[in-house]
Amino acid sequence: MAHLLSVSCSLNTPYGTSSHRKPLNQSSISFHPSPSSTVSISPLNNLSFRAKRSQRCHTIYATAVSMGQEPRLQPGSGSHQTSDKPSVPKKVMVIGGDGYCGWATSLHLSNKNYEVAVVDNLVRRLFDHQLGLDSLTPIASIHNRIRRWKSLTGKDIQLYIGDICDFEFLSEAFKSFEPDAVVHFGEQRSAPYSMIDRSRAVFTQQNNVIGTLNVLFAIKEFGEDCHLVKLGTMGEYGTPNIDIEEGYITITHNGRTDTLPYPKQASSFYHLSKVHDSHNIAFTCKAWGIRATDLNQGVVYGVRTDETAMHEELYNRLDYDGVYGTALNRFCVQAAVGHPLTVYGKGGQTRGYLDIRDTVQCVELAIANPAQRGEFRVFNQFTEQFSVNELAALVTKAGEKLGLEVKTISVPNPRVEAEEHYYNAKHTKLVELGLKPHLLSDSLLDSLLNFAIQYKDRVDLKQIMPSVSWRNIGVKPKTVSA
Amino acid sequence: MAHLLSVSCSLNTPYGTSSHRKPLNQSSISFHPSPSSTVSISPLNNLSFRAKRSQRCHTIYATAVSMGQEPRLQPGSGSHQTSDKPSVPKKVMVIGGDGYCGWATSLHLSNKNYEVAVVDNLVRRLFDHQLGLDSLTPIASIHNRIRRWKSLTGKDIQLYIGDICDFEFLSEAFKSFEPDAVVHFGEQRSAPYSMIDRSRAVFTQQNNVIGTLNVLFAIKEFGEDCHLVKLGTMGEYGTPNIDIEEGYITITHNGRTDTLPYPKQASSFYHLSKVHDSHNIAFTCKAWGIRATDLNQGVVYGVRTDETAMHEELYNRLDYDGVYGTALNRFCVQAAVGHPLTVYGKGGQTRGYLDIRDTVQCVELAIANPAQRGEFRVFNQFTEQFSVNELAALVTKAGEKLGLEVKTISVPNPRVEAEEHYYNAKHTKLVELGLKPHLLSDSLLDSLLNFAIQYKDRVDLKQIMPSVSWRNIGVKPKTVSA
Repeated sequence: MAHLLSVSCSLNTPYGTSSHRKPLNQSSISFHPSPSSTVSISPLNNLSFRAKRSQRCHTIYATAVSMGQEPRLQPGSGSHQTSDKPSVPKKVMVIGGDGYCGWATSLHLSNKNYEVAVVDNLVRRLFDHQLGLDSLTPIASIHNRIRRWKSLTGKDIQLYIGDICDFEFLSEAFKSFEPDAVVHFGEQRSAPYSMIDRSRAVFTQQNNVIGTLNVLFAIKEFGEDCHLVKLGTMGEYGTPNIDIEEGYITITHNGRTDTLPYPKQASSFYHLSKVHDSHNIAFTCKAWGIRATDLNQGVVYGVRTDETAMHEELYNRLDYDGVYGTALNRFCVQAAVGHPLTVYGKGGQTRGYLDIRDTVQCVELAIANPAQRGEFRVFNQFTEQFSVNELAALVTKAGEKLGLEVKTISVPNPRVEAEEHYYNAKHTKLVELGLKPHLLSDSLLDSLLNFAIQYKDRVDLKQIMPSVSWRNIGVKPKTVSA
Repeated sequence: MAHLLSVSCSLNTPYGTSSHRKPLNQSSISFHPSPSSTVSISPLNNLSFRAKRSQRCHTIYATAVSMGQEPRLQPGSGSHQTSDKPSVPKKVMVIGGDGYCGWATSLHLSNKNYEVAVVDNLVRRLFDHQLGLDSLTPIASIHNRIRRWKSLTGKDIQLYIGDICDFEFLSEAFKSFEPDAVVHFGEQRSAPYSMIDRSRAVFTQQNNVIGTLNVLFAIKEFGEDCHLVKLGTMGEYGTPNIDIEEGYITITHNGRTDTLPYPKQASSFYHLSKVHDSHNIAFTCKAWGIRATDLNQGVVYGVRTDETAMHEELYNRLDYDGVYGTALNRFCVQAAVGHPLTVYGKGGQTRGYLDIRDTVQCVELAIANPAQRGEFRVFNQFTEQFSVNELAALVTKAGEKLGLEVKTISVPNPRVEAEEHYYNAKHTKLVELGLKPHLLSDSLLDSLLNFAIQYKDRVDLKQIMPSVSWRNIGVKPKTVSA
């Protein structure tokens, strides 16, 4: 199999924007793990190329794409196939591809032979520095992650480092990569972060809403047929006293009937930003014919996927702190270090949960079964419902099997939310597309708990308790002391 | 009656922000029209004061407020009253107080003896310059407007010129004025403007959403009890096939019942920005106990109110162009100059309408009957429903009475919207509070038509046709040639 290795650099010169692509022949690329088979175009060449042209180059990447008359990879097959009727390789841009869900998704799609480009400004890593937080698992730089993936699998992941709120950058990335689908994780994704202070609240909404608007404009302008797969959240619905449907609800009122967007009652500036996105996307589907899938995701747990488990440099991040830690991950880490599980308030808060292995599976299913032109499709992306108390009980039981003594305490709820409420959310559409859920079980808890135990020396106990109050958020910028 | 005349200037020094207030005794202020009784502190003094302290002073104002043991003005009475039980003067901050609805409201509230502060960055006037547009009616500068009002009535309106997206400015205005109520018109308010190009779409959402977030934070931080009266739009609801309720709808679904926010289906980036605001405000009412009234206003028509009619320098703006002109105003101007009325598409688009005299009445009613702490109250603010075809017929009929020959043409609809649809929106809450509607009638059409005829030489025919397409909006910034 022959490949063309292309070297690309998007340039923003003082006189405008230009894009250069220089194809090079390369006879073969090893698909076996081999440290020496990393990207064969030296980054230094790229850097020097950039330096000659502009100080403002946003993008540096080297990539191998299959081209020409050769048999093409069959996306979704997970193996190489030849065919008389070559199918078009699916190019997927993963915005936020360096994050918790984004990195796992990028590797999964690459492994399934999609051509993947990661678009990320890496600001999530900056937030860790600013807040004095760190992933429980040590994570490699995005550059090393991608090089390691290449060395292990021979597969390239393109990398565009920049901010999607900068439309000049985003448009260059679109024009250069020409995605068939965009998976958009590229948002500030923590509810507590959005409630730290005014400036973080404003940042969250501005960053998320404007970034998504830019993605919509980029699709309209540069690839009308491109399918937007947008990560929403189950938190958009809040906790209504009726069943939660998938995006829409049919209402009969005063003798007339219509199917309307399901009412939204989000409960943090972060969750609200996703509500805003949903409304904006729905409008552009109607007005411009955008095809979009909104994945209203539940709380994700777990750290391993088939791909991230291949090498330590591919490990995913695991957050256990009060700002970025999701409930089950936090509980497992707490159990591992002998810290009581911190249940907020009464613990009756019930939400949808899913394994990160199902996150990547759901995204793949959405890409493989795209929305129609003009369709705004909403999937509720979770597999099981639990209350916080139920999660604590499950972790306690699993911890006991490992010889851990697990205690649970109730801490004052830093959030404003119902602590006892009805909750019944539908989640059948992804199952209908073929989702095979990984259900929460003792074995999974064992696995996640074992991970937590493996890295327990890295736990910073100061970060475990909630530090952000929904009611006490103020206008003065909050800083974190050493 | 004794007054204290206060001179204030908010200073932003390189070392932080400080506020200075220097009370001066003044024996009397004339309440009779007199050109010499304009603000008695020379603006030059203020300016020189500013120049000594900082180049970044946001605020210059001179104001007379009633203070101390003297009998106080009774807001809402429209006349001076004395009482054994002094009531607290109502201070109302009108954000966007230089605009179409904002200026009429500011004068009306001032006339009703509310203490009024106008907060405005005047950017609406800049947009006219940039787009080559102008109000049909000549409008005075905000400084001259306020001086004229003072000279005619003796009443002061404070003026804070700055951008509410600049939280430092907004917080100084709040701390200085200490409003009991904030009426928030301070948003980019044109649907076509938001659909000109990507940068205007982004500006509209960023400006409106972040500005409103800042107002919410200012209320939380500086005046928790302050009542937010926020201008929303009937366009938030779209055109559902069921009756539109006022903000909430009770839904029975699978045997359970809940009252939830009415589903939103906005159809421009502008209308969407108001949807986002509504969700953000609802959350802060719940989380922080903010008291808020969302006025989902219909299409406003008319130009005269009791106050703006007092003097030419108090005249309100009247927009007839394709970007800022609302349907009925545009039709009247078209009739006056012999231009066919431009019905977009089939003309079956039905909306709620109200006279600007009812806008100011509704805002006053909302202020006088504030929402409870934690309450997010939604009023549908319009008085009658019309289809575009019905409006065209009414203007044709009224024009004939004035000897005008009025023709109607259908132009391709620049918007994406249903042109024939069910529409039945509730609007009883403001009536229950005491609204006495000015209904659309021949006499009003005569009055608005006469205004249009009076100023018809100022009409720029180039501005009448729609120039902004919902479908063709692009990413390149649009400029207007001379």
